Amino acid sequence: MNEPLSGPVLVIGCGLIGTSIALALTETGATVHLDDIRAANLELAVSRGAGSPGHVEAPVLVVVAVPPAEVAATVALALAEWPQAVVTDVASVKGGLQQQIGRLAGSERYVGSHPMAGSERSGPMAASARLFEGRPWAVTAAADAKPDAVDLVVRLAGLVGGVPLVMDAAAHDRAVALVSHVPHVLSVLTAARLNDAPNDHLALAGPGLRDVTRIAGSDIALWQDILGANADEIRAVLELVRTDLDRVISAIGDDAGSLGEVLQSGRDGTQLIPGKHGDKVAEFATVFVSVADQPGELPRVMADTGESGVNIEDIRIDHELGRPVGQVEITVLASQADTLVKALIARGWSAYS
Amino acid sequence: MNEPLSGPVLVIGCGLIGTSIALALTETGATVHLDDIRAANLELAVSRGAGSPGHVEAPVLVVVAVPPAEVAATVALALAEWPQAVVTDVASVKGGLQQQIGRLAGSERYVGSHPMAGSERSGPMAASARLFEGRPWAVTAAADAKPDAVDLVVRLAGLVGGVPLVMDAAAHDRAVALVSHVPHVLSVLTAARLNDAPNDHLALAGPGLRDVTRIAGSDIALWQDILGANADEIRAVLELVRTDLDRVISAIGDDAGSLGEVLQSGRDGTQLIPGKHGDKVAEFATVFVSVADQPGELPRVMADTGESGVNIEDIRIDHELGRPVGQVEITVLASQADTLVKALIARGWSAYS
Repeated sequence: MNEPLSGPVLVIGCGLIGTSIALALTETGATVHLDDIRAANLELAVSRGAGSPGHVEAPVLVVVAVPPAEVAATVALALAEWPQAVVTDVASVKGGLQQQIGRLAGSERYVGSHPMAGSERSGPMAASARLFEGRPWAVTAAADAKPDAVDLVVRLAGLVGGVPLVMDAAAHDRAVALVSHVPHVLSVLTAARLNDAPNDHLALAGPGLRDVTRIAGSDIALWQDILGANADEIRAVLELVRTDLDRVISAIGDDAGSLGEVLQSGRDGTQLIPGKHGDKVAEFATVFVSVADQPGELPRVMADTGESGVNIEDIRIDHELGRPVGQVEITVLASQADTLVKALIARGWSAYS
Repeated sequence: MNEPLSGPVLVIGCGLIGTSIALALTETGATVHLDDIRAANLELAVSRGAGSPGHVEAPVLVVVAVPPAEVAATVALALAEWPQAVVTDVASVKGGLQQQIGRLAGSERYVGSHPMAGSERSGPMAASARLFEGRPWAVTAAADAKPDAVDLVVRLAGLVGGVPLVMDAAAHDRAVALVSHVPHVLSVLTAARLNDAPNDHLALAGPGLRDVTRIAGSDIALWQDILGANADEIRAVLELVRTDLDRVISAIGDDAGSLGEVLQSGRDGTQLIPGKHGDKVAEFATVFVSVADQPGELPRVMADTGESGVNIEDIRIDHELGRPVGQVEITVLASQADTLVKALIARGWSAYS
């Protein structure tokens, strides 16, 4: 669907994201040049086949993938040095950056990117040409951006496997505050309370707690930067959260109706999330299987599931507490749950839905 | 390890939990009698082989598994009608109940239970003898409870596959406020904000948002009851959450150090959760595999993973957005990640860690 790019691409910054973009573009047949002021990163990215180091005469596209604090200056230099090139960046907050860059000559050739992909690891050795596979990739353009420049960045997103979503920078920053930054803060606030608890209290923890607090375990310095860069949008949403929180605190135990309204509002919110846990949630059912916690058991369940002809929508594994058996939860279309249960029981598994 | 019970058990209330307990006890060889004022539930539970209906002369144990509002009265009737029996219940909040029951003659034969298990479905048809497999089962006893009664309820928990944790009722209620009720409220508050967002904002949602908001999709009436019954404990924790929230709101954008302290406190909290995502999180690594979204592909990945000899700690499946490829995340011991990546690549998969 996507034609390869017709000229060389320069990727500045060979960390996880930059090297992954370079690897993916190289696979499409594009000519990719690499630059990084950290010589070790550059060398590693080149050794992984992400592209060639050194000077490039006339790139059609410059991808700035440097740390957040260096993005604005690097984009400015790139716009000045290559007057024909389209320039994009991959920072996770876009509004302030777009304002800064909008004052520069050539800013109509700048289009922002935010690929919604990452990894617990960082650096060029953690990079992968598959990092963006199926992930949303926000493309943010100012009103005066050249349509050709926007098109090129949309093509970049698609070429590396992402799903491009064109939006304006302010809308992007509000969106990530809602879907990423505020959920992160509330996950952190939930997890922070666990420091008050004696150990035997936490033995009652179930999969729900692990879900809510998982992202609170992320890198702190990175999240300090992200939250700081989008402070205004996040603060506005957190103030609405505080209003709801106050409502719960005053309603709980006294006003079940008002508490119910907040619960309903949360449930409505979950229905809006696209994908498997959102609008189609009612169509799915969960099949539970008891599995010994040893190599080979899980693959055997999966193989038996596959032979039943039922497609797997999701899998979760719950660990045992002090016993050598875990529970696997397999989500399938509700209409297929009984078929799967019968197939698994016929093969000797303890299963129910 | 656990000897079968030496006399008949009466289970009152044939919903999901009661019928599951009855099914599991019947499998151990126990004699189980069933009762339910809802004739249809009773009939269904009997038809599933959970036990016999009708009068029982001298049960050694009565399990009260009726809706929350009916528990205290049903326990009172049971203590009076069977003066030799130990009586337990399965309500999810224990303190108020224990106080009410403590005033009754025979209360030394009452011991509370709270099995930490459930299902999105309810009723006897959703019941399973495996529901409690490996799940924590809180056993709450007043200071004057008979040791034999406590022992019998601990045995019940173990016989049906649960992991008994003896604690006092007040400690239990504080614990579930921290590990279950407050996380539920914060999940709801996160999801509630999504109602403000235009659809294209939510297209940026990733797996983190789905994790944090998953439990907000639960049954509203049930959670109104649960939160109301444990209002004092939940309110106390939510007030601490509000203090942290205010701290984030005033620090964000202005005081990175203070924001970092809150983030650190959340990260510390996640380390305290027992199980795979808690104390041992640093030992694990994630392997990413691209998989076509069609029957048979996932089982084939699992089978190839199994043949690599690497044990699977956890699996997650990320769905595509408008493309027929998804990404499977396989968590394994960090020391085994490279082995798995190489084995999968050798079998033609696109994998990295």
